[in-house]
Amino acid sequence: MTAQTEASLRARALKVIPNGMYGHESVALLPDGFPQFFSRADGAWIWDSEGNRYLDFMCAYGPNLLGYHHPEVDAAAARQAALGDAMTGPAPVMVDLAETLVSMVGHADWAMFCKNGTDATSMALMTARAHTGRRIVLVAAGAYHGAAAWCTPGPMGVLPEDRAFIRPYLYNDVASLEAAVAEAGDDLAGIFASPFKHDVFVDQELPDPAYAERARALCDETGALLIIDEVRAGFRLAKDCSWSLVGVAPDLSCWGKSLGNGQPLSALLGAEKARGAAGSLYVTGSFWFAATPMAAAIETLRILRETDYLAHFEALGTRLRVGLDAAAAAHGFTLRQSGPVQMPLIMFAQDPDARLGYAFSQEMLARGVYMHPWHNMFLCAAMTMADIEFALAAADEAFAALAPRRASVQPSPRLLALLEQAAAGGH
Amino acid sequence: MTAQTEASLRARALKVIPNGMYGHESVALLPDGFPQFFSRADGAWIWDSEGNRYLDFMCAYGPNLLGYHHPEVDAAAARQAALGDAMTGPAPVMVDLAETLVSMVGHADWAMFCKNGTDATSMALMTARAHTGRRIVLVAAGAYHGAAAWCTPGPMGVLPEDRAFIRPYLYNDVASLEAAVAEAGDDLAGIFASPFKHDVFVDQELPDPAYAERARALCDETGALLIIDEVRAGFRLAKDCSWSLVGVAPDLSCWGKSLGNGQPLSALLGAEKARGAAGSLYVTGSFWFAATPMAAAIETLRILRETDYLAHFEALGTRLRVGLDAAAAAHGFTLRQSGPVQMPLIMFAQDPDARLGYAFSQEMLARGVYMHPWHNMFLCAAMTMADIEFALAAADEAFAALAPRRASVQPSPRLLALLEQAAAGGH
Repeated sequence: MTAQTEASLRARALKVIPNGMYGHESVALLPDGFPQFFSRADGAWIWDSEGNRYLDFMCAYGPNLLGYHHPEVDAAAARQAALGDAMTGPAPVMVDLAETLVSMVGHADWAMFCKNGTDATSMALMTARAHTGRRIVLVAAGAYHGAAAWCTPGPMGVLPEDRAFIRPYLYNDVASLEAAVAEAGDDLAGIFASPFKHDVFVDQELPDPAYAERARALCDETGALLIIDEVRAGFRLAKDCSWSLVGVAPDLSCWGKSLGNGQPLSALLGAEKARGAAGSLYVTGSFWFAATPMAAAIETLRILRETDYLAHFEALGTRLRVGLDAAAAAHGFTLRQSGPVQMPLIMFAQDPDARLGYAFSQEMLARGVYMHPWHNMFLCAAMTMADIEFALAAADEAFAALAPRRASVQPSPRLLALLEQAAAGGH
Repeated sequence: MTAQTEASLRARALKVIPNGMYGHESVALLPDGFPQFFSRADGAWIWDSEGNRYLDFMCAYGPNLLGYHHPEVDAAAARQAALGDAMTGPAPVMVDLAETLVSMVGHADWAMFCKNGTDATSMALMTARAHTGRRIVLVAAGAYHGAAAWCTPGPMGVLPEDRAFIRPYLYNDVASLEAAVAEAGDDLAGIFASPFKHDVFVDQELPDPAYAERARALCDETGALLIIDEVRAGFRLAKDCSWSLVGVAPDLSCWGKSLGNGQPLSALLGAEKARGAAGSLYVTGSFWFAATPMAAAIETLRILRETDYLAHFEALGTRLRVGLDAAAAAHGFTLRQSGPVQMPLIMFAQDPDARLGYAFSQEMLARGVYMHPWHNMFLCAAMTMADIEFALAAADEAFAALAPRRASVQPSPRLLALLEQAAAGGH
């Protein structure tokens, strides 16, 4: 394959794709200079269309958990693909995978598979309504649960009716949650929560156990279903539902992204009491029962069970966080690093329009490190401590390059527009 | 891999999957004895978990267009997979594929990719609303456009608000369409149509050109968007949008299933005038930009352009239809075969509860031919005339076996329940 220039690809894309690209991987959401197209990925690294290599802290926005092209996962996928993938019915691996997930995820008694994270959250919403015969579902303000009309952060194409019974509360705020539950009265069907607060543009927050426990108790009192959206964080914090870390079991959990280490697969897992409602839905998709991603997921989960990847993530993430703080301080900067070290969000103190964050991520990109200025990032198990040291050396240079021009950095007009949208409750 | 019994797989599945299976590939919708699980697929054939082989007239419900494991498509997919699949941005193949589709599909000026057919139809719905600033979308009664809350044929988990502005009309009925448009008044956003009427349980109908032209004219008069849902029929009737056969160009078309010959991919294609609205949506998915299915689609489309697969489909389908009618008549049966021969629907005359269709499909299954009693079927390009003759020989035996017990065949209670649901407007 001939290398193609980013500019020529963008010009061609602009003709045949609205805006040249859309969705969460559009560079319209990123600083100038970020490549839109990638020609290759391997382990912890990605290559743009011109052959530049980057240490990838976005991991495909989550799917890359063990490293791109993990040999054992790819081999398992290839073995199944040689037998059959999308067929006229599922393969036996569907049962194997459901059993595997039920055995690993404490609250789960059953599994349903789908393709998008949004499929899983939409099925959770419908299951909660079918289970209770009620309508109102509470969602933390600013949380992302997918891009269907009921949840997309963009306003276009959405009717008020699409979210007539979606009501906000404040993550980690017990009083806010209680007020929203009280207001829902006898029409409360469910409560959504992310495993931790991983909204864009704002500091991440781990779940307060008191909030998690209260959410559970309120669901128990009202009969509503508690739903954890693990699509982004699943298996990055625990080899179980993330809220097992705070001792709270949901009724439903939504999974995707990392489940098959990049193979397209998502899932809704549920407790026994929600089985009847989930089974009453008519939900399906042309590729939902394809076997190859399921075989990849079974192998991914085996590796998760048998390795200490979580300790590896914690060691890498801690070194990155500590090292970045030190490098920033050495050049007169103060960072705001938040969330679990395995899913870092790196912003700057006193940087309300993120102009420093934008400029820093550009300096990092120029040094071969792909970091996101306002979205949580991801580690993958293929990353080594040497990779982290590479990133820290790049950061030292990036801060040094940024320091003398600190006062003259301008905010991005695109970013200002995005921030306005975020302030209005969108993405 | 050890062969597993269907019974043991079903017993295990029942524990960890609601009802043991769900969606369009659930055998709850099929006669007793149909296998739920498949261990292998190749060309035009599938093998169940116990090793029984069937000539597969369902083609994974559509994705299998060229044959399972088509060597050139699989090679193209493998080449891209070796480079990168789900990455932190799309690969150049995304642009190549968008250009390819725009060059093949007459009405299309741009493409957006997604995973499920339902993603494409939901994006079409939102694009129509964003484009017009209006709410009402007309859908032919009984048509299937996906399994999201606004369109799923199942009632559970759905609120009246989810489909508050979805209004029915009768396919091929100009007066009905005109009345629905008039009733929508100045709130009409779009009109959905299938390429032909391929509803379940009833005879299929090719589109009346007068109906297609009137739908186009009504959209032109009102500014609403005309949307063709090609998810099921795409590239099976034409190497262009199916309505090119009646000389009508829609504003949007939805594609999926066959696009990547089994690789998970769907797409929304649109005319220039809808580009701005489509680009204004925030729609996305974790795996939407994965490169491997796009590479498979480019190769699939190349093969479609360069081969006479449509003539092959027509020859196979015509021989099947004529041969089945003759075999049926020889044993005293009359069939109702409807729709294009490339996507046959085979039912029995005077069989309102489909008991004969159920019994016939069981007899065919026992002879190694997988046919569906109430859903349109599919051909694949890997099928040969010898395969069709194999099916016709099986049919001759099946009719012969069915004839003496014709009077004593009982209807399926599960089917009766399904028919009641269909009569109520569902699937």
